[in-house]
Amino acid sequence: MGGASQPCIVGIGQTEFTRWGRITDRSEFQLAAQAVLAAAADAGLDPGAIDGFASYANDRNEPSLMQAALGTGPLRFASMVWGGGGGGACGAVAHAAAAVAAGTARHVAVYRGVCQGQSFRYGRTAHPWAPGSNFIFPFGLFSPPPMMALLVRRHMALYGTRPEHLARVPLACYDNAGRNPNAVMRERRLTLETYMASRLIADPLRLYDCCLESDGACALIVTTLERARDLRCAPVAILAAGQGSEPGWGTGPLGGFNMPDELFASTNAASLARDLYGRAGLTPDDIDVAQLYDDFSGMVLMALEDFGFCGRGEGGPFVAGGAIDRGGRLPVNTAGGSLAEAYIHGLNLALEGVRQMRGRSTSQVEGAATCLVTSGPAVSPTSAAILGRI
Amino acid sequence: MGGASQPCIVGIGQTEFTRWGRITDRSEFQLAAQAVLAAAADAGLDPGAIDGFASYANDRNEPSLMQAALGTGPLRFASMVWGGGGGGACGAVAHAAAAVAAGTARHVAVYRGVCQGQSFRYGRTAHPWAPGSNFIFPFGLFSPPPMMALLVRRHMALYGTRPEHLARVPLACYDNAGRNPNAVMRERRLTLETYMASRLIADPLRLYDCCLESDGACALIVTTLERARDLRCAPVAILAAGQGSEPGWGTGPLGGFNMPDELFASTNAASLARDLYGRAGLTPDDIDVAQLYDDFSGMVLMALEDFGFCGRGEGGPFVAGGAIDRGGRLPVNTAGGSLAEAYIHGLNLALEGVRQMRGRSTSQVEGAATCLVTSGPAVSPTSAAILGRI
Repeated sequence: MGGASQPCIVGIGQTEFTRWGRITDRSEFQLAAQAVLAAAADAGLDPGAIDGFASYANDRNEPSLMQAALGTGPLRFASMVWGGGGGGACGAVAHAAAAVAAGTARHVAVYRGVCQGQSFRYGRTAHPWAPGSNFIFPFGLFSPPPMMALLVRRHMALYGTRPEHLARVPLACYDNAGRNPNAVMRERRLTLETYMASRLIADPLRLYDCCLESDGACALIVTTLERARDLRCAPVAILAAGQGSEPGWGTGPLGGFNMPDELFASTNAASLARDLYGRAGLTPDDIDVAQLYDDFSGMVLMALEDFGFCGRGEGGPFVAGGAIDRGGRLPVNTAGGSLAEAYIHGLNLALEGVRQMRGRSTSQVEGAATCLVTSGPAVSPTSAAILGRI
Repeated sequence: MGGASQPCIVGIGQTEFTRWGRITDRSEFQLAAQAVLAAAADAGLDPGAIDGFASYANDRNEPSLMQAALGTGPLRFASMVWGGGGGGACGAVAHAAAAVAAGTARHVAVYRGVCQGQSFRYGRTAHPWAPGSNFIFPFGLFSPPPMMALLVRRHMALYGTRPEHLARVPLACYDNAGRNPNAVMRERRLTLETYMASRLIADPLRLYDCCLESDGACALIVTTLERARDLRCAPVAILAAGQGSEPGWGTGPLGGFNMPDELFASTNAASLARDLYGRAGLTPDDIDVAQLYDDFSGMVLMALEDFGFCGRGEGGPFVAGGAIDRGGRLPVNTAGGSLAEAYIHGLNLALEGVRQMRGRSTSQVEGAATCLVTSGPAVSPTSAAILGRI
């Protein structure tokens, strides 16, 4: 890719973010449509010109309903990235990027609405929504916290990772959320003492290690650089975006625990990372800021390892040295992330990536020219994207 | 597209096709995996080199399970085209083509297994599997036959289409199936008298107007022309492939009947057709043979109109003149189609398109260089592809 057909993000939009169950005056579908309209307005694009839609995580708010509700013209592309988990946000961006680069669509809206008060609370899942559930429910693995806790516990056992290491992730996220007026936790201050005193949800994960449960919606518009130049916006390049899963991973922790031992305490993204860096012509040293999917704090440590910012097992000491904090080597989740901004299934992380590349984050990294965004760690397939300033 | 990154189909594979419920020794998942392995063997490709999977119609046989079962390397692309209907076969081909052209994956397997004896019979749907069901079930629209019968009846009312016109579709399909040793109906002869004497399923649709209910699986491998040249196969070009839905269609007949009147008796593909012809640089006159999704006979007449082989409402007289028969202007469903070969959710139609471009159909059209394949007429989004001999 590159040149005129270089895929770009030209607009971002969102609704308000709230705790779960607080938005009752609009449906999840209306929230998603509202976010798409906001993204189009941000791009300076007539919403009627949207001719593709991409969502993920078995989204019920289907593209053809979006087309009808928004009154767009002929639909040319519709993608609903497979899977129930959060592995799809950057996957949907990748599908959209391929579609505009290949010419199958011109302007693709990537969207996700999450209204846990209108459907079900992810944190209390009690029905078999993932393949393999029959094999893990008998062991008490009914919902994401105990499932992912196993991976984090394994990371501790193998590498000596400590609770104080995990704490650095929510501490960084809450610090950033304090500067983000749209963050659900904008008024909550978090200290190490508060963290250590908080209750265990699924050992070793404490309350602040677990993402929020939120209502809200996000959207972004993908087109080519050539078309972006006709719009009144500062396009952000999608330098590389893709999905990935390691050989042997199988359905992974949200559907089984049959991955090889050497992958167990990982985000299933090591080869995806190599692939994206290769396609973007970059190395980890070239990444200025990152939005790493933080369904649980420990997954951020594993993502830092998979994406090469530190060695395998070194995530704990890496964050303990301040690397992911404001002013650190690699500031992470600069809007607050899933832990403190909102849990919009990771699409809010992509939006913050765009703001960083525009120089418009409320925790802006000075001179940042590249941003890594990851989705659904340890999901199969997981996904990620590298954004670049133009 | 074009040149080295031109997307191609390099291998096709399938299982045996049977009436529904006859395959009991393997699961639907095993059938799908068997078809993928057969397609890889046909391409001369090590199955371990498959790094992308695309399926559709809410396929339960998920890419990550395929990766684990087939022992492939890192997964780089996974697409499950949205929607419960048959609108996805060519949509999955389009997603795969965009992925290999954009470089997100190298070898994508498009697959679909259907085992109606192991899940549920589409023809007896009695649960709300499509959006809007609450609004149409009260009117007796419980399953596809009565839903699609409304469109066919409207076509008759508007344009004078007659039962003898509809009959030409199954007559052509059964004639072709008689030469296809893999067709479920290979031994059944159909005459106009038999057709006219057959029972009504949903007026005006008779038994032979309705597709089969089958067990079986199909797969094909998509890669670039550059990579195809390293394989021992005759690649077939994907000249254009895409999804489409008309403005105002909404969820269409399988989820509602709120499309504008001028689209009611159509396959929702008119702008998709214009788009594909434009991208391929072809006109309807350039198409030598077609595989048109025949869930119901009448939809073939509407597809012929939407894709410009005859004028709006002229589908009946067009087929009555022998156009779609063997030796006609545009032979259709040359392996027997969904009416007489098998109902593998339309992916068998794509495989027959490849055979035609290879000169290997059992009802080969002499010198055929281009083949139109359509999927899921009147589904939103629907999809189609134009294949070309290289």
